[in-house]
Amino acid sequence: MDAEEEASWLDALRLAMPAETVTPFRALGDEARQRAEIAIVANPDPSDIAALPKLAFVHSLWAGVERLVSELGPGAPPIVRLVDPSMGRVMAEAVLAWTHYLQRDMPAYARQQREHRWAPLPYRKPESMIVGLLGLGALGAAAAARLLDAGFRVAGWSRSPKALPGVETFTGDEGLAALLSKSDVVVCLLPLTAATRDLLDARRLAEMKPDAALINFGRGPIVVAADLIRALDEEKLSHAVLDVFDKEPLDQASPFWAHPNVTVLPHITAPTDHATAAAVVASSVRDFRLTGRIPGHVDLTRGY
Amino acid sequence: MDAEEEASWLDALRLAMPAETVTPFRALGDEARQRAEIAIVANPDPSDIAALPKLAFVHSLWAGVERLVSELGPGAPPIVRLVDPSMGRVMAEAVLAWTHYLQRDMPAYARQQREHRWAPLPYRKPESMIVGLLGLGALGAAAAARLLDAGFRVAGWSRSPKALPGVETFTGDEGLAALLSKSDVVVCLLPLTAATRDLLDARRLAEMKPDAALINFGRGPIVVAADLIRALDEEKLSHAVLDVFDKEPLDQASPFWAHPNVTVLPHITAPTDHATAAAVVASSVRDFRLTGRIPGHVDLTRGY
Repeated sequence: MDAEEEASWLDALRLAMPAETVTPFRALGDEARQRAEIAIVANPDPSDIAALPKLAFVHSLWAGVERLVSELGPGAPPIVRLVDPSMGRVMAEAVLAWTHYLQRDMPAYARQQREHRWAPLPYRKPESMIVGLLGLGALGAAAAARLLDAGFRVAGWSRSPKALPGVETFTGDEGLAALLSKSDVVVCLLPLTAATRDLLDARRLAEMKPDAALINFGRGPIVVAADLIRALDEEKLSHAVLDVFDKEPLDQASPFWAHPNVTVLPHITAPTDHATAAAVVASSVRDFRLTGRIPGHVDLTRGY
Repeated sequence: MDAEEEASWLDALRLAMPAETVTPFRALGDEARQRAEIAIVANPDPSDIAALPKLAFVHSLWAGVERLVSELGPGAPPIVRLVDPSMGRVMAEAVLAWTHYLQRDMPAYARQQREHRWAPLPYRKPESMIVGLLGLGALGAAAAARLLDAGFRVAGWSRSPKALPGVETFTGDEGLAALLSKSDVVVCLLPLTAATRDLLDARRLAEMKPDAALINFGRGPIVVAADLIRALDEEKLSHAVLDVFDKEPLDQASPFWAHPNVTVLPHITAPTDHATAAAVVASSVRDFRLTGRIPGHVDLTRGY
């Protein structure tokens, strides 16, 4: 985190919880380190967390905490991930915006423009398309509502069975195959866990409907990059919109950059809003002060 | 109209009004020409219309009838333009899709991808942006509702004063200047008339907010192409999304094709749905048969 971003977070957090003392780790003296009760972190050095013996919990400023979970290990304090309802709204907006990008053939029209070619393509009504969501937590539910409102048909898959109004839902291994085979656009919003790493591999990508498109707004390692490139090269899939990658920033050598059927985004679909995130953290902290309860935290066996 | 499209229209029209005899003009004998009561047209040869002396009205399959009005001239039968509510939905979808395209910086991310550059740009909340609609008829009203639903602030300008829930509306010459100066994205949905031809010229484009973007989904000649190119070259405007042009298909020599800040679309934002359009025509025809009333038609003094 650069100095400007750190300053913005400190401002937002102090404004949201004026009764608390919010201090950057490096400004804590020995005595303060012994007393610190809550760590608010983005991507901390694990030894910094270990230097704070009295922590009741660690509150992440990120929704995805797979790296924190693995780096802090099983002996660490409870880890609370950011669940910011306004992030659901922003992610749902991104899902709708890039679904329209595909439905309205924006990549093909951009290519035609480069070739100075005037060629209307057949219009696809939202009602004629199924958008399949992988992940039906807060982000998936918000995305489903936005897509339904725009007229798309929506299917959804989740680890544990879920019901969502207007959404055909699937679960389990066979459920995933069913969703992949019927969706025109598959949108991955899953967290990265042991169960989701490499989930979309050659076998799963081959289960997708011919000419379907993939949007990955979850985490890079959920999709096997080499397998995706092959499916695109063999024209089994029409396009991929990728906002997340195995390594970020995306490696200069990655074939994704120059692939004609890949849209590369620099992890921008659902940026954290410092003010609303600080309000969510403040509410957890206030609740802890009043009741002593640790806010809802990561189940280490599930990984999220 | 090619043979395939003509066949599709004939099918749709015959299906929608089985009690009527629907015949292509070239298949009409002399006697049938003397008796034909209604002409359903796309872009007819004016002499064909003149060869049908008993026409009660001419029903266009297009929403934009400026060419028909000028070609048929003042002595022609009443001209009915297509007002298809489902086209309002499709146009509103296009307005939202390409507004998100601009708000989410899709053109800039595409450019960065070509340069293999990883550079997140600041996220702009819809609530922080004003989308200014030129034209508040059926299409404008549908677009406004969709944009408001997505969180954008919406302003609108129309020839005659209008009120729309949640929309700040403007009218007249000064109203246009006010709307242009406050909108981050200006969306033109106006019909082409004597009053709107060349409306967005150098003077009007200079009234736009610095760095604003223009979407033209109305008609090409409403925007003075050379003036728009200059405003983009001088970086007074950030981007233009153009679906309509002075001449279509767009001339190969047009500087729009290769302009880095122009998105060229081949008149595809709101394609006519043959089935729903035929149902609208059938409903007008049925009403005429029952009541003898000519459906709402073009006011030649307004031009739409």
